[in-house]
Amino acid sequence: MAGKLYGIGVGPGDPKLLTLKAKEILENVQAVAYPVKEKGEESTAYHIAAQAADLSGKQIIEIEFKMDKDRQKREACRREAAKLLASYLDQGLDIGMITLGDVSVYSTYTYVNQMLAQKGYETEIVPGIPSFCGGAAKAQISLAEGNESFGVISSLKGEAQLETALKTFDNLVVMKAGSSVKKIAAKLAAMGLESHGAVLSNVGMADEYIGPLDTERDYGYFTTLIIKKKEDVQDGLFYRRRTGGSPASDN
Amino acid sequence: MAGKLYGIGVGPGDPKLLTLKAKEILENVQAVAYPVKEKGEESTAYHIAAQAADLSGKQIIEIEFKMDKDRQKREACRREAAKLLASYLDQGLDIGMITLGDVSVYSTYTYVNQMLAQKGYETEIVPGIPSFCGGAAKAQISLAEGNESFGVISSLKGEAQLETALKTFDNLVVMKAGSSVKKIAAKLAAMGLESHGAVLSNVGMADEYIGPLDTERDYGYFTTLIIKKKEDVQDGLFYRRRTGGSPASDN
Repeated sequence: MAGKLYGIGVGPGDPKLLTLKAKEILENVQAVAYPVKEKGEESTAYHIAAQAADLSGKQIIEIEFKMDKDRQKREACRREAAKLLASYLDQGLDIGMITLGDVSVYSTYTYVNQMLAQKGYETEIVPGIPSFCGGAAKAQISLAEGNESFGVISSLKGEAQLETALKTFDNLVVMKAGSSVKKIAAKLAAMGLESHGAVLSNVGMADEYIGPLDTERDYGYFTTLIIKKKEDVQDGLFYRRRTGGSPASDN
Repeated sequence: MAGKLYGIGVGPGDPKLLTLKAKEILENVQAVAYPVKEKGEESTAYHIAAQAADLSGKQIIEIEFKMDKDRQKREACRREAAKLLASYLDQGLDIGMITLGDVSVYSTYTYVNQMLAQKGYETEIVPGIPSFCGGAAKAQISLAEGNESFGVISSLKGEAQLETALKTFDNLVVMKAGSSVKKIAAKLAAMGLESHGAVLSNVGMADEYIGPLDTERDYGYFTTLIIKKKEDVQDGLFYRRRTGGSPASDN
């Protein structure tokens, strides 16, 4: 009998933010798979999972997902990935394929899940804490209250997108915002919203920064912005720091 | 010394979707608080948490949050809630205040967190799986892939909001959509997107429905819609059912 494929979100970084279900399934499967850009690469998702669950003795499957600009090459890569996973499933092995954050939010897992489900393999998705929820919790600010709406954007496509999104939604999350912080800050200033943005950068890492928009800093790839149209977030961030939440690095 | 206040998300329903951290903190605090609309009401959040963590012997604190249309009355209610929690914190008790889903997404906890942090109490937020991530996982569809964006709306304010949101974002989550399913279905049909919506209703309950938009059904309060502009989701939902994911109730 063929094995079962689980897509498992390991959350934003803290191993204790794995769910009880993720830990249980990871300890029961025979193989753990994770996406890499190049073979032999270190996997952050694996590093997180291995601190929360006992993964000793598991078969490890590296899945290559090349970040090629060519769509056909990316699709060929996904078909290869599905084929590789199928070869283990056909041996009767259950596989836990892990991904950072939540499985449904910007993960490469969805593609192989669909391909393998279509071929008749049993699949299940175990959700994880998305990074923007982890970040909002650290900053102790909300993403939406009452009847508010919020939007999530990954890597800003231009100022027009930002403006339209801010007009349509009460609050906005911009993921992978590292390189566009200055542009976003300028736009917010022009809209009179300069103190309405919170930056969450490299959360859980040594150079973590959670604080107001500071255009003098350099931000890494794992930078998320939360913009609240109706609320000045500076106060909240200030209180958070004063009362002993995880301190901002400029404290 | 005053106790510490934890805001803890217990996830969308399955007790195993609590995080390891939520379970650990809930088992260590002396008091567990939860919001109710009326005193003595059953708490779904408590019911979920108690299945995952040992809550025996904990002090239970019911926090009344009246759903009053009058803003001043709601605010007075929040001040009362903060005062009540403070009285326990002042006794040196650590409190875990639990909330369905994630703390940052439409929870009443944020208000009291801010009030108590401003008064100098130590506060921490432990994120949980938001219901829309739990629903997307059950339906085995993604909320966003590649460079897509997605928006989250709670209780639709009108057709214009839906149309603008669909124009601005690639994918859309509509929470508390029970009463507006027919209206949304009509709008999607007019846009040629009738097969692009998935309904997740009463997930985890006896009358769970995960499937295509079906305007002949009645949907309860806990109904979420996921609309994907570029993707016909019928196929995905069909495969999910065929391959033994949690079956839709019309199966």
